Amino acid sequence: MSDETVLDSSVPTVELPEAIRERDASTCARLISEMPAGDAAHVLSGLSDSERSDLLGLLDAETSAQVLEHLPEPQVLGAVESLSPAIAARIIEELPSDAQADLIATLDAEDAEAILTEISAEEAGEIRRMAAYAPDTAGGLMVSEFLRFPRDWTVRQVIEDLGEHAEEYADYDIQYAYVVDDLGGLVGVLRMRDLLLSRRADAIASRMIEAPISVADEMPLDELEALFDEHRFFGFPVVDERGQLVGVVHRTAVENALAESAESDFRRSQGIIGGEELRSMPLRVRSGRRLAWLSVNIVLNVVAASVIAMHQDTLEAVIALAVFLPIISDMSGCSGNQAVAVSMREMTLGVTRPGDFLRVLRKELSVGAVNGLVLGALIGTLALIWKGNIALGLVVGAALMVNTVVAVGIGGCVPLVLKKFKKDPALASGPILTTVTDMCGFFLVLTLAALALPYLIGV
Amino acid sequence: MSDETVLDSSVPTVELPEAIRERDASTCARLISEMPAGDAAHVLSGLSDSERSDLLGLLDAETSAQVLEHLPEPQVLGAVESLSPAIAARIIEELPSDAQADLIATLDAEDAEAILTEISAEEAGEIRRMAAYAPDTAGGLMVSEFLRFPRDWTVRQVIEDLGEHAEEYADYDIQYAYVVDDLGGLVGVLRMRDLLLSRRADAIASRMIEAPISVADEMPLDELEALFDEHRFFGFPVVDERGQLVGVVHRTAVENALAESAESDFRRSQGIIGGEELRSMPLRVRSGRRLAWLSVNIVLNVVAASVIAMHQDTLEAVIALAVFLPIISDMSGCSGNQAVAVSMREMTLGVTRPGDFLRVLRKELSVGAVNGLVLGALIGTLALIWKGNIALGLVVGAALMVNTVVAVGIGGCVPLVLKKFKKDPALASGPILTTVTDMCGFFLVLTLAALALPYLIGV
Repeated sequence: MSDETVLDSSVPTVELPEAIRERDASTCARLISEMPAGDAAHVLSGLSDSERSDLLGLLDAETSAQVLEHLPEPQVLGAVESLSPAIAARIIEELPSDAQADLIATLDAEDAEAILTEISAEEAGEIRRMAAYAPDTAGGLMVSEFLRFPRDWTVRQVIEDLGEHAEEYADYDIQYAYVVDDLGGLVGVLRMRDLLLSRRADAIASRMIEAPISVADEMPLDELEALFDEHRFFGFPVVDERGQLVGVVHRTAVENALAESAESDFRRSQGIIGGEELRSMPLRVRSGRRLAWLSVNIVLNVVAASVIAMHQDTLEAVIALAVFLPIISDMSGCSGNQAVAVSMREMTLGVTRPGDFLRVLRKELSVGAVNGLVLGALIGTLALIWKGNIALGLVVGAALMVNTVVAVGIGGCVPLVLKKFKKDPALASGPILTTVTDMCGFFLVLTLAALALPYLIGV
Repeated sequence: MSDETVLDSSVPTVELPEAIRERDASTCARLISEMPAGDAAHVLSGLSDSERSDLLGLLDAETSAQVLEHLPEPQVLGAVESLSPAIAARIIEELPSDAQADLIATLDAEDAEAILTEISAEEAGEIRRMAAYAPDTAGGLMVSEFLRFPRDWTVRQVIEDLGEHAEEYADYDIQYAYVVDDLGGLVGVLRMRDLLLSRRADAIASRMIEAPISVADEMPLDELEALFDEHRFFGFPVVDERGQLVGVVHRTAVENALAESAESDFRRSQGIIGGEELRSMPLRVRSGRRLAWLSVNIVLNVVAASVIAMHQDTLEAVIALAVFLPIISDMSGCSGNQAVAVSMREMTLGVTRPGDFLRVLRKELSVGAVNGLVLGALIGTLALIWKGNIALGLVVGAALMVNTVVAVGIGGCVPLVLKKFKKDPALASGPILTTVTDMCGFFLVLTLAALALPYLIGV
């Protein structure tokens, strides 16, 4: 019985492609609506590109919009590009305003224009306006679905309006309504709880909170994060430079953008930098994007290894050193990466700023000294035991010790410096760190060995 | 003028420690309330431990709670532990229920008990109940601040209740109210908009949505994410195994937990694994936690490097190989890390599952073959040009090519396998990957070189 249940839950995977092939619109719609939440992304993204565009051709616009919301961004782009502009336009109309703007902003300018001409001029203008904002700003994160009422309305008018537009407002956050003057300028915020407790004849202007906190449409993500940390509000009204109310940015959108940015930091630290990759993309794209990064990296590696080439005679005299070169390079990289991670975290929390350079350096050098001593002693002892040569132990131990201090110093400070110059710390810290620590590590081992050469011969 | 403005904004940093030293409670409170949102974390976490506990002793409980909400977790723990249980209890009472539970769950059992005995039995029981849930479950993420009304109430009773408890409900999300039976079982959801449009004499049971979607208190984060992806709701009611309504989990809490988890993945991939580090912690703690990871890593490194030691005679004969060993080790590590990042991302998006092992392997091997060919050709050509020896070029080129395929295969699959066995992919993928690819890379270079030795002598 339990086996059957397991089989049942995986049935849609098999049935959906079949229903698409048979162009059975109602079965497709049923399978999608019955799909467990956790399965939708797996099943829908597992379809081939042509199956996915056929599916969107079969479904009504609303269900198609739901399908798009389950797909990762690159697949959404592919699917929308494969549709006729008219059909794509109907589907996009069903998306929430922030998703509309994100999608239009990511499409080719030509595709975007073709779709926008199929949408009413007013709505298209709205989408264009939203799509023009940079993604990680209040404007890029805000929605245009929110309650907005003229300042001279009464509570009764608001309640009647809510009843008349119940359908349209279904997805709105109605915790707050925003009160505007004749020119669309923000003048107050009306809490739904206060509305509820008011008499119907009251003017909303008498119940609203005047001069509410609003954010500029250009406010960047980190300032939004600080603001939401300070206030427990669910959202802030967004105004443009003329003080016009243009949208509402919700706490959820900010948290979501922060999660995206943390994930993207992780990916970039792992060498995924040419754009997000899905294994469903063509081999050419996947391979090309990864190579773009690897080819930079191989140059840096060759530069670092050239230090070894320059000291080849020392290495030839003391071949055992070759065993320790990769160890010292890797261990220093690890120590430095730890310092990078702590700096990135402290900057995210706001407890460290790019200007705190000296404090970070001081704190890292002390940790580096302790850890360098421990690791250097470990590797030095190991070398001593292996070859029974004190000089070898001293050379590799001292090299790892000094290089650990160098690595944590660089690892701690590089993210601050990059941030100061508005470069991306997650992207550039790693390569800078490992190239410098590799070169420095190789140089230390081989130079110290050259100095101690008389004591090392025969190892 | 502009210089002065800059100076002004940094004044609190200097003044706050002074006000604390002078035990000037009102200046402290003023400085904190006037502090710009973005500065609070930097200034408050920059205080010494004793300044921070003195500050909390001076402030009223509500302001102290605000201070705690600006601090990173380790500093919150330190500050609370330094206070008397009675004062800590007053401050904790001012925190939202999820923050209360998180804090109590993280404190030493003894400290937690001492504080809980200073809180009313009812509230302490509630905190204990919340603190018992695992952090990344519906129970651990939910709040107990939500509107809950008996099913036999009328709209008028609800509206009167909202008026009477306006203060208490100030931080509540009032988008929805939950309707319960006599035993506390969830029977319906009442949307505030519907309440607003109802007549006061209506029974709320006639306006509520019956049998609403609820989540089990044990539901893990990834299922919550899928559910919030599927539905546009702002929150779901949480029920225990008896169907009792125990809390509400908001979209914001889920997004926030996802951001935390992505950041923690990043930190662990960088070798911060013994617990989060702040540079304000004592040197002993910072150094010890980093060493815990580094000492595992040095063992893995020594194991990998032992492959070099075993082929020392080959290396001695062809010393130029020593230059290529670190390059091949590092490049393979990079290629493998890219595959790790793509697997982690695809699992987060739900498009790949642990069972998709073969598909991932197939996709990775094709990328690995292409990228291995390109990188192998690059490094092989470089070796050929450097030493004018074709055999050397073939050996290092072939080694990097094969090892790239190995690395992406392992990098792509290891996260899936770890996830299948409920291990943390962000933590263990890196070390497994680099140890295996280092060993394999060293082995390939030196074994191929041994086979081609007659053609390599003199390089």
